[in-house]
Amino acid sequence: MARSCLTIILAAGQGTRMKSPLPKVLHPLAGKALVQHVADAAISAGTTKIAMVVGHGADEVREALNGQFDQMNYFVQDRQLGTGHAVLAARSAIAEGYDDVVVLFGDTPLVRPIVLEAARRRLADGADVVVVGFRPEDPTGYGRLIEKDGRLRAIREEKDASHEERLITFCNGGIMAFSGTRVLSLLDAIGNDNAKGEFYMTDAVEIAGGRDLKVMAIEASVEDVMGINTRVELAAAEAAWQRRRREELLLEGVSMTAPETVFLHHDTQISADVTVEPNVVFGPDVEVRTGARIRSFSHLEGALVGEGAEVGPFARLRPGASLGARSKVGNFCEVKKADVGAGAKINHLSYIGDAVIGAGANIGAGTITCNYDGFGKHLTEIGENAFVGSNSALVAPVSVGAGAYIASGSVITASVPADGVAFGRARQENKEGRAPELRARFAAAKEGKS
Amino acid sequence: MARSCLTIILAAGQGTRMKSPLPKVLHPLAGKALVQHVADAAISAGTTKIAMVVGHGADEVREALNGQFDQMNYFVQDRQLGTGHAVLAARSAIAEGYDDVVVLFGDTPLVRPIVLEAARRRLADGADVVVVGFRPEDPTGYGRLIEKDGRLRAIREEKDASHEERLITFCNGGIMAFSGTRVLSLLDAIGNDNAKGEFYMTDAVEIAGGRDLKVMAIEASVEDVMGINTRVELAAAEAAWQRRRREELLLEGVSMTAPETVFLHHDTQISADVTVEPNVVFGPDVEVRTGARIRSFSHLEGALVGEGAEVGPFARLRPGASLGARSKVGNFCEVKKADVGAGAKINHLSYIGDAVIGAGANIGAGTITCNYDGFGKHLTEIGENAFVGSNSALVAPVSVGAGAYIASGSVITASVPADGVAFGRARQENKEGRAPELRARFAAAKEGKS
Amino acid sequence: MARSCLTIILAAGQGTRMKSPLPKVLHPLAGKALVQHVADAAISAGTTKIAMVVGHGADEVREALNGQFDQMNYFVQDRQLGTGHAVLAARSAIAEGYDDVVVLFGDTPLVRPIVLEAARRRLADGADVVVVGFRPEDPTGYGRLIEKDGRLRAIREEKDASHEERLITFCNGGIMAFSGTRVLSLLDAIGNDNAKGEFYMTDAVEIAGGRDLKVMAIEASVEDVMGINTRVELAAAEAAWQRRRREELLLEGVSMTAPETVFLHHDTQISADVTVEPNVVFGPDVEVRTGARIRSFSHLEGALVGEGAEVGPFARLRPGASLGARSKVGNFCEVKKADVGAGAKINHLSYIGDAVIGAGANIGAGTITCNYDGFGKHLTEIGENAFVGSNSALVAPVSVGAGAYIASGSVITASVPADGVAFGRARQENKEGRAPELRARFAAAKEGKS
Repeated sequence: MARSCLTIILAAGQGTRMKSPLPKVLHPLAGKALVQHVADAAISAGTTKIAMVVGHGADEVREALNGQFDQMNYFVQDRQLGTGHAVLAARSAIAEGYDDVVVLFGDTPLVRPIVLEAARRRLADGADVVVVGFRPEDPTGYGRLIEKDGRLRAIREEKDASHEERLITFCNGGIMAFSGTRVLSLLDAIGNDNAKGEFYMTDAVEIAGGRDLKVMAIEASVEDVMGINTRVELAAAEAAWQRRRREELLLEGVSMTAPETVFLHHDTQISADVTVEPNVVFGPDVEVRTGARIRSFSHLEGALVGEGAEVGPFARLRPGASLGARSKVGNFCEVKKADVGAGAKINHLSYIGDAVIGAGANIGAGTITCNYDGFGKHLTEIGENAFVGSNSALVAPVSVGAGAYIASGSVITASVPADGVAFGRARQENKEGRAPELRARFAAAKEGKS
Repeated sequence: MARSCLTIILAAGQGTRMKSPLPKVLHPLAGKALVQHVADAAISAGTTKIAMVVGHGADEVREALNGQFDQMNYFVQDRQLGTGHAVLAARSAIAEGYDDVVVLFGDTPLVRPIVLEAARRRLADGADVVVVGFRPEDPTGYGRLIEKDGRLRAIREEKDASHEERLITFCNGGIMAFSGTRVLSLLDAIGNDNAKGEFYMTDAVEIAGGRDLKVMAIEASVEDVMGINTRVELAAAEAAWQRRRREELLLEGVSMTAPETVFLHHDTQISADVTVEPNVVFGPDVEVRTGARIRSFSHLEGALVGEGAEVGPFARLRPGASLGARSKVGNFCEVKKADVGAGAKINHLSYIGDAVIGAGANIGAGTITCNYDGFGKHLTEIGENAFVGSNSALVAPVSVGAGAYIASGSVITASVPADGVAFGRARQENKEGRAPELRARFAAAKEGKS
Repeated sequence: MARSCLTIILAAGQGTRMKSPLPKVLHPLAGKALVQHVADAAISAGTTKIAMVVGHGADEVREALNGQFDQMNYFVQDRQLGTGHAVLAARSAIAEGYDDVVVLFGDTPLVRPIVLEAARRRLADGADVVVVGFRPEDPTGYGRLIEKDGRLRAIREEKDASHEERLITFCNGGIMAFSGTRVLSLLDAIGNDNAKGEFYMTDAVEIAGGRDLKVMAIEASVEDVMGINTRVELAAAEAAWQRRRREELLLEGVSMTAPETVFLHHDTQISADVTVEPNVVFGPDVEVRTGARIRSFSHLEGALVGEGAEVGPFARLRPGASLGARSKVGNFCEVKKADVGAGAKINHLSYIGDAVIGAGANIGAGTITCNYDGFGKHLTEIGENAFVGSNSALVAPVSVGAGAYIASGSVITASVPADGVAFGRARQENKEGRAPELRARFAAAKEGKS
């Protein structure tokens, strides 16, 4: 779009019903602040500049959004006197003169760019004011959009609506767009002669009508205008976001037998032909490449899963886990800050941290990299095709050469050369027929205690 | 309420459709017997006494409810001849003379105290009989409540209803309340001249009308009157209970991104500003204090999670686990019967049972307290700020002093003094260049077998 | 049914919208290919023969269905020219002469045998053509079934429907059944004089009407005729299948508090009076016997869980795990290819693979069977009532005799005789007061690094 656009995002509210010290618009949805979702939608829709109107928790909001978008300015609304008042906090930005001025809310995170684009298209086609409406399942309590001859004539509050008007199901969704040449004059005309003594941006509709300007309504989905005021609504929005994102992935060719049990993060990247089984949680910064399989009960954060690799069930990948092609991390295994080579296997009950595992290496069940000595973290290096026997402890810093073989149950404290064999376990001693005696002794001890 | 109240709970049914040897009213919902939910609602609503009418599994019901409420008496209904007959099993209790007599069902566990209070308020305001109605999505099959001039005139069964009456969506929910001065006379007037030869409590409505008494209906939610007859209905009730309780917690300020995946027990206590991630199961007797974080795939029973502590992902807390402030129990860790000091860390693949862990202690990955010798359980004590190296086994009874240091891979069988260092592992032996030979030997052995 | 029946299954489509190299009808639902679900329904409904019409991925479909049903023949439809054309690919099978000819679709996997039986019953009662209809929530876009005097007169496409016809909610579900004596003559009369130039099987309805044959519609559920074209629809069908199967199990007496979190495989067998807690995933080939309890976060594949056994939470059973009566496999345990004797316990953080565990044996926390030496898998045998101390490694092949006792933290490389006691751990060495010095050394080393 060649037209310039200012997006004003109202983010000054306190959100007391969230019962949280965190400003409402900073609560996370898919791991990203509500207001960031809104700003990202504006950016995707091609806004030129964003005017962020802040109030409660202004500094925290500013800090959270820091560096996200160059053309973002902040305006402080000290007292909350209604949406009309809030928008005017950004008067100096409006006065810079944009073709389009779009007003969004910091607590309606599911608005899609296509809705904003549609509103701007109406402005480009000659509308002076555009209101985004929606059709809730039950319109009770919402302002009704009164249309006539393709124009929006009024937004009628429930209490002022006639019986016939109440039958209208098309309701005010809050989001508005204004022609840049009209916006200030309209906003300045809004009064506060009402019960609460507040300035309502929606009054601009009737003012514009009185001036014979062109006011139109467009229809969005219920989710697009869904505002968050409580944690119950936040959870509902999260569910809606997850549903939407899962559907996108399915349609792109990701296999999920029970998508409703797969939890995605806003930045989760999953290629086509990846299989994700039921009950998987993706935290921040995860990429899964084609052909990989994420099995049930897996938890991934900050991890790269290479082509054809297999994770889980019951696997945890932590930040810095990088799995090579066709490698495997199996049940009850934790991998963090570790490069796992192509085809390497960490299949059972292992902790691999601060490590480099060579291609084709086999890490036996119950292997632990002892990376922490109480003071610092140290590296474990395991060469290509090395074999680490089950229940081994690798006391870092330590390296195991390519093709080396570590006997099961060993504690490895010194490096093992390539192709070397290392033992670090005690010799077994059998005492024949002694178990009955032992049992008698333990039983007596127990008797004595009780 | 100053008025005295008798609550009669009908709990004599067999529940054959549950396909279970357990009496129907004892099936658990959120870990508490159905009938106990009903009794608890009555107690919350301020009942003076409960008359429990039992039949099938009478002894088991009595035992399950034992000691829950002082003013609970049992009445046996030997033959099941309808609700009117069942209520009269408690005739002697009714005859004691209460202001209000409320009749509930042992298999409608989701009735809320406010519904009972509303019914009693109507009695206090002069009603003689109150029927609790509801509006099901599809009223087909339910008895319709026929009202006129604010009074309930009849409960019309589907088969007897006129076309116009079938359009009524307000239906009989079963629960009734009676003025104590009228109840016996009304119940005694009920006959069994019907197809099944049973006595229906609902007949009291028309009898009361005939006597020009005041009969009223109040409206409850569908869930309030939801009866359980099959395990499918039980699962639906459990889902409804969970939904209700999760919403309460969210509104109190608990963070849950996917509340639909968090399973609560009837006695689960979670403070505001606790975060519960997706996929967490709470068993009986768990308390989570403010600022704590329960991460995904955690399972808690009989545990206390202190302020700011972190649990999971993939952690299991068993009865007697008590986590100090800011302590951590991480992935694939099991903690039972153990006091974990403030700030102590048990982060990876560990089993800590029958133990006392001092504040600030660090338990390395793969640590096992060997608490069981085949005969009895023994205690492991670890002092403040002690460091237990990874993959260690602590053979109880044993104590590790404050500030002591245990080398990775050790088996600790004797106590370690404060500030001591303990080793309990074999010395490593490297055999250079021997892996190829070993591989050849194994390969030959495999060849020989196959 | 004494009548012979040919079922033609149309399975030639490519399914490009699945975004998958796998032919659409081979995508799994509850672990079984879509087309196999359809074939199984036909077999359950007593079909005599199945004619499978294949096209895209013909060889893969053939191979996937190989050996499932003796009376299955394949017919290749080279070009996709509509359903009427597809059915005639099986002309030679039709010509063999069956009483009934039923046409199903390889991508509508939830069709129930009772629907097919109902259609065939109509044929037996004299109908010549039967169309299976359904009532979608929103009929927009579906062909409407135009009935008159109990006969089906036409299937009217949305675009050709009058305003009145569009109000009809009874829609074409696709599935049809034909009298064997009429079918070929009807199909041969279908033309392709339409926009796409394709042959539509549904045209048979009006052709039959024109010949004064008896055409009838029967009603099925929405799920019965639910076709799969995208992975979103596949996920919806999976959810529907799971819901249906969970309900069956609940009604048979299986306890599930949160059935919506239990994922079943098409061949999962669970007896009455089994309890399945929330969040359990069943893979292929699992049987759970009466009285067993599958706790939360468990994952089972290829396993038998004996009477009264307990699994989980956080347990993984892999193929070949066979748990004896009242045995237990607890948290963070993996069991594969192992017979676990009655009453034996594997409670914590253990890997048991390629093993035989005797009745009553106790496997301590953190026990690992070291079954793989890098070349082959070896057996571990543990006798009845043996006690394996915590954190032990059993290096296979190895056997531990009945009643033997293994000290905690041992590495067992040689067999232990019955009633013997085995130690395989290093002696502990304490260095008093040395931890402060060690701490200073580590701290200095860290300082040096940074």
